[in-house]
Amino acid sequence: MPEVDFAPWRTRVDAALASALPSADQSPQRLHGAMRHAALDGGKRMRPLLVYATGTAFGADVASLDAPAVAVELIHAYSLVHDDLPAMDDDALRRGKPTVHIAFDEATAILAGDALQSLAFEQLTQAPLSADLRVAMLAELAQAAGVRGMCGGQALDIDATGGVAIDLPALQRLHAMKTGALIRASVRLGAIAAGAEAASRARLDTFADALGLAFQVRDDLLDVEGDSAALGKTAGKDAAQQKATFPALLGLDATRARLQQLATDMRDALAPLGPRADALAALARAAVERTH
Amino acid sequence: MPEVDFAPWRTRVDAALASALPSADQSPQRLHGAMRHAALDGGKRMRPLLVYATGTAFGADVASLDAPAVAVELIHAYSLVHDDLPAMDDDALRRGKPTVHIAFDEATAILAGDALQSLAFEQLTQAPLSADLRVAMLAELAQAAGVRGMCGGQALDIDATGGVAIDLPALQRLHAMKTGALIRASVRLGAIAAGAEAASRARLDTFADALGLAFQVRDDLLDVEGDSAALGKTAGKDAAQQKATFPALLGLDATRARLQQLATDMRDALAPLGPRADALAALARAAVERTH
Repeated sequence: MPEVDFAPWRTRVDAALASALPSADQSPQRLHGAMRHAALDGGKRMRPLLVYATGTAFGADVASLDAPAVAVELIHAYSLVHDDLPAMDDDALRRGKPTVHIAFDEATAILAGDALQSLAFEQLTQAPLSADLRVAMLAELAQAAGVRGMCGGQALDIDATGGVAIDLPALQRLHAMKTGALIRASVRLGAIAAGAEAASRARLDTFADALGLAFQVRDDLLDVEGDSAALGKTAGKDAAQQKATFPALLGLDATRARLQQLATDMRDALAPLGPRADALAALARAAVERTH
Repeated sequence: MPEVDFAPWRTRVDAALASALPSADQSPQRLHGAMRHAALDGGKRMRPLLVYATGTAFGADVASLDAPAVAVELIHAYSLVHDDLPAMDDDALRRGKPTVHIAFDEATAILAGDALQSLAFEQLTQAPLSADLRVAMLAELAQAAGVRGMCGGQALDIDATGGVAIDLPALQRLHAMKTGALIRASVRLGAIAAGAEAASRARLDTFADALGLAFQVRDDLLDVEGDSAALGKTAGKDAAQQKATFPALLGLDATRARLQQLATDMRDALAPLGPRADALAALARAAVERTH
């Protein structure tokens, strides 16, 4: 399996994010500072990397991918800020740094999340692509972020916390919405920018759905197996909050086997695409093998 | 001055909102119920009415105005849900009903606001207009909602609460962002849908800026003069929170004079447009004369 160096795309999206986010020197400084705190200096940038990996695999100009890469990361960053709030997961640590409501304050964290969401859509309107493609990307991102995607999944997650019974199909639906929808949108935005044909798009959807689930299964395992220092966030919180997780439902061994099956599913989905899918395959491996 | 019957447009946007919002019978019910609580059965619908009034004045098909009318109301509704949160204004009453975090819970209120924002952009992507016009509307709404608009203004408002000194230009900038930007976007979305020419758009901006300010000046006066029952929210909160307001800075008489001057400015801006601006003129009068 070829090694893929993601540093150039990471550098690229970090620069684009730093430029898209409002300056912390400009009023209102506190809001701008909180937005930069949330979106810069941390994170694996998995969603932007999916945009670049998919888009370039199908021939998109890399410059046309900056706006969608920034947009998916801004949506992800806003969701973390709001998920960490005291009324939600009440988390003080994220990516090894104090969460936004700790580093700033709760009102600023709510507003910063709100403004990051607006900025994500604003960025997409400015992508150097036809208006038709931009509208297609905006529709995709809005759906992935909303009630049939991330927000809906988070609501299901709240319902499933505190020891409420939930079965495996319900848990998978929850994660397909909460985490999976934005991961799928990241892949789709790259495919839209590249004008990928329908057959490839269907294959990419299959890949992305397995990736989203694998990412969450790995997350659940890390919460059991990992330690807070390596994770950059508090470990063992799922059990403490009686959260529905794959290990809680399936046991640890079956959860690990499930993760390996998803890795196989992803390889199968990408195989017909040949070497152009090398970067996507590497991202799949990273999601399955990650330690934080 | 001709009377204008706004009931048909109100009925129209209420139906479009009810249809755009996810069903409270579908999972996640609590989130969907909170979104409907926030956006239906209440409100003056000033922003949607501005979309319809501007759009039809410049020849837009009314059916092309439903999506932008819904979008601006959804952004407005989300901002109220988040502004009412305990960490923000901590308000229990809104439009005569319990606020979302009271009727539901705080986590659901945060999520409902987030999902309402996503839905606003999703609705605009589906407007029956060219992709170029849809992108122009999406860019306008995203900017109005973000750091240079509503969120930025709300951050300035937080900074100015608790007795911090703020002068008149700073207060006006705050409101031009917090309330004014979305009011201006409402007018602009109607103008974009109608393909209004540049000279008219500049005139409409002048009108909208005066309207946004007038709306806030009236709001400040109502908080001093009004009672909670008529307002449908708690009166006297501004003084209790030592909020920067026009009455606090200018005194009551000068604030009332200011409001009359803004009414004159709005009439002057609309006069060259003739009778087609009758509905906009009626909305201006309603904003200046409103008692809640």
